[in-house]
Amino acid sequence: MSMEIINGGVTAPKGFEAAGIAAAIKYENRKDMAMICSTVPAVVAGSFTTNVVKAAPVLWDMDIVKNNETARCVVVNSGIANACTGQQGMEFCRKTAEKAATLLGIKEKEVLIGSTGVIGMQLPLERIEAGINLLVKEKNSSLIAGTNAAEAIMTTDTKMKQAAVTVTVGGKTVTIGGISKGSGMIHPNMCTMLAYVTTDVLITKELLTEAVNEIVADTYNMISVDGDTSTNDTLLVFANGQAGNPLISKKNEDYQMFKDALYYINEYLAKMMAKDGEGATTLIEMQVIGATTKEEARLLAKSVVGSSLVKAAVYGRDANWGRIICALGYSGADFDPDKLKLCFESAAGNIMIYEDGCGLDFDETKASKILSSDEVVIKVDMKMGDAAATAWGCDLTEDYVKINADYRS
Amino acid sequence: MSMEIINGGVTAPKGFEAAGIAAAIKYENRKDMAMICSTVPAVVAGSFTTNVVKAAPVLWDMDIVKNNETARCVVVNSGIANACTGQQGMEFCRKTAEKAATLLGIKEKEVLIGSTGVIGMQLPLERIEAGINLLVKEKNSSLIAGTNAAEAIMTTDTKMKQAAVTVTVGGKTVTIGGISKGSGMIHPNMCTMLAYVTTDVLITKELLTEAVNEIVADTYNMISVDGDTSTNDTLLVFANGQAGNPLISKKNEDYQMFKDALYYINEYLAKMMAKDGEGATTLIEMQVIGATTKEEARLLAKSVVGSSLVKAAVYGRDANWGRIICALGYSGADFDPDKLKLCFESAAGNIMIYEDGCGLDFDETKASKILSSDEVVIKVDMKMGDAAATAWGCDLTEDYVKINADYRS
Repeated sequence: MSMEIINGGVTAPKGFEAAGIAAAIKYENRKDMAMICSTVPAVVAGSFTTNVVKAAPVLWDMDIVKNNETARCVVVNSGIANACTGQQGMEFCRKTAEKAATLLGIKEKEVLIGSTGVIGMQLPLERIEAGINLLVKEKNSSLIAGTNAAEAIMTTDTKMKQAAVTVTVGGKTVTIGGISKGSGMIHPNMCTMLAYVTTDVLITKELLTEAVNEIVADTYNMISVDGDTSTNDTLLVFANGQAGNPLISKKNEDYQMFKDALYYINEYLAKMMAKDGEGATTLIEMQVIGATTKEEARLLAKSVVGSSLVKAAVYGRDANWGRIICALGYSGADFDPDKLKLCFESAAGNIMIYEDGCGLDFDETKASKILSSDEVVIKVDMKMGDAAATAWGCDLTEDYVKINADYRS
Repeated sequence: MSMEIINGGVTAPKGFEAAGIAAAIKYENRKDMAMICSTVPAVVAGSFTTNVVKAAPVLWDMDIVKNNETARCVVVNSGIANACTGQQGMEFCRKTAEKAATLLGIKEKEVLIGSTGVIGMQLPLERIEAGINLLVKEKNSSLIAGTNAAEAIMTTDTKMKQAAVTVTVGGKTVTIGGISKGSGMIHPNMCTMLAYVTTDVLITKELLTEAVNEIVADTYNMISVDGDTSTNDTLLVFANGQAGNPLISKKNEDYQMFKDALYYINEYLAKMMAKDGEGATTLIEMQVIGATTKEEARLLAKSVVGSSLVKAAVYGRDANWGRIICALGYSGADFDPDKLKLCFESAAGNIMIYEDGCGLDFDETKASKILSSDEVVIKVDMKMGDAAATAWGCDLTEDYVKINADYRS
């Protein structure tokens, strides 16, 4: 693939503007509102939390993505989640969209909304409206503007997350950029993941939606920090067609090129969320091969990165393979424990741990050294079939507990 | 119910002997082998881990419980789990049973086996055999002997767990006693729960099995410490008929009396395991009422006690209801968030937190005080139907992480 990684985020593609500003929604002196706009109508695809309890902005966005062909803008605040806020919360969404639409000269239903933060509080509408005034004034297409937006959606993430790539589609350079915020719940009640991706590719809404659904299953849905699925999880992908490529309306080579690049951006954003999990010191990448079906491969990989005991063992740099075999065992997938093959890999080397139903007599010191890297790969071959999947998580540390036991403030 | 709580454990019922001794299976200077015997053949029912990876003793016991009408004895070691030990592990089970059977003058297939401890190591067969010699010599029907057995199955539990009750069945006093060990994984690779219950009731194997299956679903299967289902989980219930009651072979009043008492013992043992979870300071009891079905009530209750964020909030004595609503939301059960009612209760009082889709303006200091008890009840009314379920868990503390990140030793 002729993909190239470039600087920037959501403003890297043509025809997108962004801004990130401080609006004092819940805390002073930090950026807490962001806006991303397309200069022309963009087809939009999305993926949302499966939690029965959905925040008001999630319901607002789901309606637009389902019923409207295009949208123009997303407005995000990272102070208050607007979840468990009843009818009033929905009305605040509408008023937020109305304010942005009026200033931008677009329709209310062209404005999507994102929120993350404290559950149960109502939005301070005046501050939101003042924030939108400022966002509309500040928004521009510079890379800095995209970075400002990436910073403004952070809650307690320790690192800003953005990425951009170019790829040649139908002879034209197509750019994809994205930002995300992860699972830093340092202030309890903060909600989990938001991700926004922009691209100037010209593609039908139908195919964009299909690509997004496929990619979400292998990226965002394969990360776990603590197993708690938030009320606000949202991914939105905007495609505004400004790259001038021939319209992608079939699953041809152009589609595949674009989808691979879109996958890269989303996998990167998802991995960075796992790596920046609350209190984490190490990214755990669990690679499963040789599973019977793709679905079972996913179950197996997710079960291991979701195991508190595996996560604590990685934090302790302890090659405690019994816990990994145990987590595979309760994943819900069927397999023969006597066939398994397991090894660890990182920048510090690799080591075979388990084979044919028994642990090997490996060098514990070497294994511990391998587990001391900031990215650790656990590879398991189920030897049952040809299906594979990868999941990402992070280690479990005392800091995770400290962060989440702190009284709300 | 005319049930009475009495002293003792597995030796409280007539016709049972026990012993607990130090056999240096993995660590010196601690009791690590136990034996419980019935003086006559006893019908036996069991429940075992659903993990695909099953330890050798689990496979051994499953075969006996399925294919044999009665058994006489269980031999337990708490040093090495005999899990992931392949064919050699199965052979060590057979040799353990053979040794005990020879000394006791019973059949090999009348001897059940329990193991908990390090995964992946092979048993030191000579020490096991020496231990059996000592157990057979020491075993007797005193209450102290039952307590010794309760102590010998502990791994890193902080408290010994046993209980006994009497109940009048068909004009006769029937006694039920039990011991269990919980989820103290202070030494990584230790495995989770073992529970052994004895009773002198006369009952058919079929009805005993049915009662046990029903009870397990509402007791052991409703506790969670860290969501990791071990390779060794085992419950065995022995009924030797020495109480002299009329045989229970129908679901009559006698059956109900006995089942209620059996439920009490198992719920007690299960709760004590949750309360003594690794690093725990508080038992969390999650009561769900008003659910659509029993199955949904269970899903909802278990989802909350399994949530790392809820567990950390309870540790922080933080009435962080958003996390509870969120955990209900991703449980897999369907409901209307706008109908929910939620309150907290403990020895320190009770407080209403959430109603009709919105958080109430409650006294945070009072709520925090309620959460500071060593047993906290969270009650939720789904207002969807008549089904109810209760689950038990514990708070998540820095000690849980410390315990499980420690290098194996």
